[in-house]
Amino acid sequence: MKISARNQLKGTIVDVRKGATTAHVRIEIAGGQVVTAAITNEAVDELGLAVGREATAVVKASDVLVAVA
Amino acid sequence: MKISARNQLKGTIVDVRKGATTAHVRIEIAGGQVVTAAITNEAVDELGLAVGREATAVVKASDVLVAVA
Amino acid sequence: MKISARNQLKGTIVDVRKGATTAHVRIEIAGGQVVTAAITNEAVDELGLAVGREATAVVKASDVLVAVA
Amino acid sequence: MKISARNQLKGTIVDVRKGATTAHVRIEIAGGQVVTAAITNEAVDELGLAVGREATAVVKASDVLVAVA
Amino acid sequence: MKISARNQLKGTIVDVRKGATTAHVRIEIAGGQVVTAAITNEAVDELGLAVGREATAVVKASDVLVAVA
Amino acid sequence: MKISARNQLKGTIVDVRKGATTAHVRIEIAGGQVVTAAITNEAVDELGLAVGREATAVVKASDVLVAVA
Repeated sequence: MKISARNQLKGTIVDVRKGATTAHVRIEIAGGQVVTAAITNEAVDELGLAVGREATAVVKASDVLVAVA
Repeated sequence: MKISARNQLKGTIVDVRKGATTAHVRIEIAGGQVVTAAITNEAVDELGLAVGREATAVVKASDVLVAVA
Repeated sequence: MKISARNQLKGTIVDVRKGATTAHVRIEIAGGQVVTAAITNEAVDELGLAVGREATAVVKASDVLVAVA
Repeated sequence: MKISARNQLKGTIVDVRKGATTAHVRIEIAGGQVVTAAITNEAVDELGLAVGREATAVVKASDVLVAVA
Repeated sequence: MKISARNQLKGTIVDVRKGATTAHVRIEIAGGQVVTAAITNEAVDELGLAVGREATAVVKASDVLVAVA
Repeated sequence: MKISARNQLKGTIVDVRKGATTAHVRIEIAGGQVVTAAITNEAVDELGLAVGREATAVVKASDVLVAVA
């Protein structure tokens, strides 16, 4: 499957924390930066997301803001 | 100013392309990856975004999807 | 590739309209309803999106609002 | 009230699950597909969302990604 | 129609600018602040959005970031 | 720091409610309207968000829908 999102940052999952309905998944990408995703608990289970697994953080270009100092 | 967004990826602007109302700004972040932001032309002007300028790609955790192979 | 998005509606592309930077792609899904996606022109080119091609409309659960009469 | 969102998929609520602050509401739309919305618990209460009630899943075009096989 | 979005800011349209596919609509809300919406040209036409018309800016809580000085 | 988001509504925090992973923060803006933001608990802690503190609700133009009566 290929997806239209302009931003697909590959990395490794370093943390998975489930809440009541929403989970936070942290992915360490190239350069050592960590990206946090807030997704459903169901998605965590269905995809088998766990620490150490390779994963890609996917972000639509229209969801990126730009900040300058 | 500090902002709640979990993801703030610092880098350098490598491309700015304005459309009729929507512009695409590309920021090269640590590790050499490029993040694309779709923002308004007005924001490009107001912030003075231009190639070579340091900028941060800001993404809310709830706007990040996770993909696995 | 599997993705965390809870909503993945399969269908067939019925319209592709490029703008200056942003394209509108319409996908007819099961039940005859049409879903419109606003994505970058680059994504249209890169994925080879064209009328008649099978495609999936992908939507994160946190991007769905609920309305009642 | 009419709203600008391009995607307004009518259906029937088949599941409502509240979390600590975020609820998941599932709506079965035409064609038998189920759309999941992550909304606030307050919205569930205020709109009286419950299984069996007719509801519309509303999605802005800029929040739809496109995937191809 | 009632919608789940927590933020529904009533006001008056003060500017409508169409692009190739994406339009910018500005709504002056209570307190004199102006909210900008980027929506499709089609939505502008279908809803008959024009300067002087009353309109509501609708924003999902999960799309709001918080900044502090 | 300056950010590209077109909508930056200044106000005062009137409520902070943490969930298991997602918090709801309410900001009263000019004109007496209240904007609700759903952000991570971590952001609440990191920014020290609390009732009575001045804060700005930040919304990207592409996340604003328009409704008319």
